Amino acid sequence: MGQLILHEDPLSANCYKIKLTAALLSIPLERRRYSILAGETKTPEFLQNISAFGRIPVLQIDATTLLPESNAACFYLAENAASLSSSTSTASSPLLNLIPTSALQRADMLRWMFFEQNNHEPTVATLRYWLYVLGEETLAEDRIVQLPGKRVAARQAIDYVEDRLSKSESGWLVGDGITLADICLFAYTHLAHNSGFDLKDWPAVVAWCERIKAVDGFIEYDESN
Amino acid sequence: MGQLILHEDPLSANCYKIKLTAALLSIPLERRRYSILAGETKTPEFLQNISAFGRIPVLQIDATTLLPESNAACFYLAENAASLSSSTSTASSPLLNLIPTSALQRADMLRWMFFEQNNHEPTVATLRYWLYVLGEETLAEDRIVQLPGKRVAARQAIDYVEDRLSKSESGWLVGDGITLADICLFAYTHLAHNSGFDLKDWPAVVAWCERIKAVDGFIEYDESN
Repeated sequence: MGQLILHEDPLSANCYKIKLTAALLSIPLERRRYSILAGETKTPEFLQNISAFGRIPVLQIDATTLLPESNAACFYLAENAASLSSSTSTASSPLLNLIPTSALQRADMLRWMFFEQNNHEPTVATLRYWLYVLGEETLAEDRIVQLPGKRVAARQAIDYVEDRLSKSESGWLVGDGITLADICLFAYTHLAHNSGFDLKDWPAVVAWCERIKAVDGFIEYDESN
Repeated sequence: MGQLILHEDPLSANCYKIKLTAALLSIPLERRRYSILAGETKTPEFLQNISAFGRIPVLQIDATTLLPESNAACFYLAENAASLSSSTSTASSPLLNLIPTSALQRADMLRWMFFEQNNHEPTVATLRYWLYVLGEETLAEDRIVQLPGKRVAARQAIDYVEDRLSKSESGWLVGDGITLADICLFAYTHLAHNSGFDLKDWPAVVAWCERIKAVDGFIEYDESN
């Protein structure tokens, strides 16, 4: 198997999820950058060769195997970390296990990842894209009228994460350690100031963000790279 | 382990996904019905005891373990089918394996399930809820203005499934047989007439729907029960 290639736009925190997962597991990724704003994910070449749906991220596994959807790409990396990682895991320094071994916790991890894609990303991430990336003054009327509803729903989504974390003895969403659920929800949550929110309203979320940043191998989100 | 309990509203095809998965795997489910329209998923009792997020479906695993998110519940049932099923699997009649054993196919299955929650459900299912369940004449202005965009995005989502299926040698979304990807995308796709679409525009999707209906143990969606 050759090097994995991540087709991405650094502005997207969906892409960041994959880079963070790979960093925590010491999995090398080659990166190909495209600008969503410049239309580079809608060119005939992109639609033909990378994704007919015209979206990033896409994780390229080999010459003909392409895996879209950020959370699925994170799952692939974590499930195959032992063979993909460049680090040699030892008894004193084992590879992180980002997917719980208990069937119930595995389903609960996926539950938070589906929640992220269905409730959190379409509100918190969409507000970030509209307000921070595009700018409110550029929005057409059909988006302007959605802003109040998106703000309420985004707040409910972060409230729900706060509720879970405030009741978690371990400080993680699922089980006793960091899992993909934490990584996938961290991505847009820790950028919620770009979406118009101040995280100090959610103290358990703030503490959890710091907990994630302290994990060995953590890399910061960098929208310029 | 006692009987699994599905907290559901029969109007929701997200709930149907779980019932269909359970039926294909001969897993008994006790059902508790709530009316979303009557506000029964927002009562203090529901928020306290079933889900603080006020949504169904929720799969109850035991007295204190509740698993929200339809696709996560399907994953739990399929991964634990051998212990949950009431049918005795034999060499001549093995239990369906709805989760592929190959790591790549497993990630690809999750990819379609995340796509469903991020792109298909918020368009195809939301249109069904607005137009068929609530009725267009009842919609407020902030929803009316979203209809054209939702219709375009729903069509793109079904186009993408059509594209995949038309290139699939097996006739399934992933690998050589039915997986959770097919079940989770089938739920709202086969009801797309409720969302204002005529599936004859997508012949590979129509053939795939018939293929799913022919699987041993299939149960029809029934909004009245």
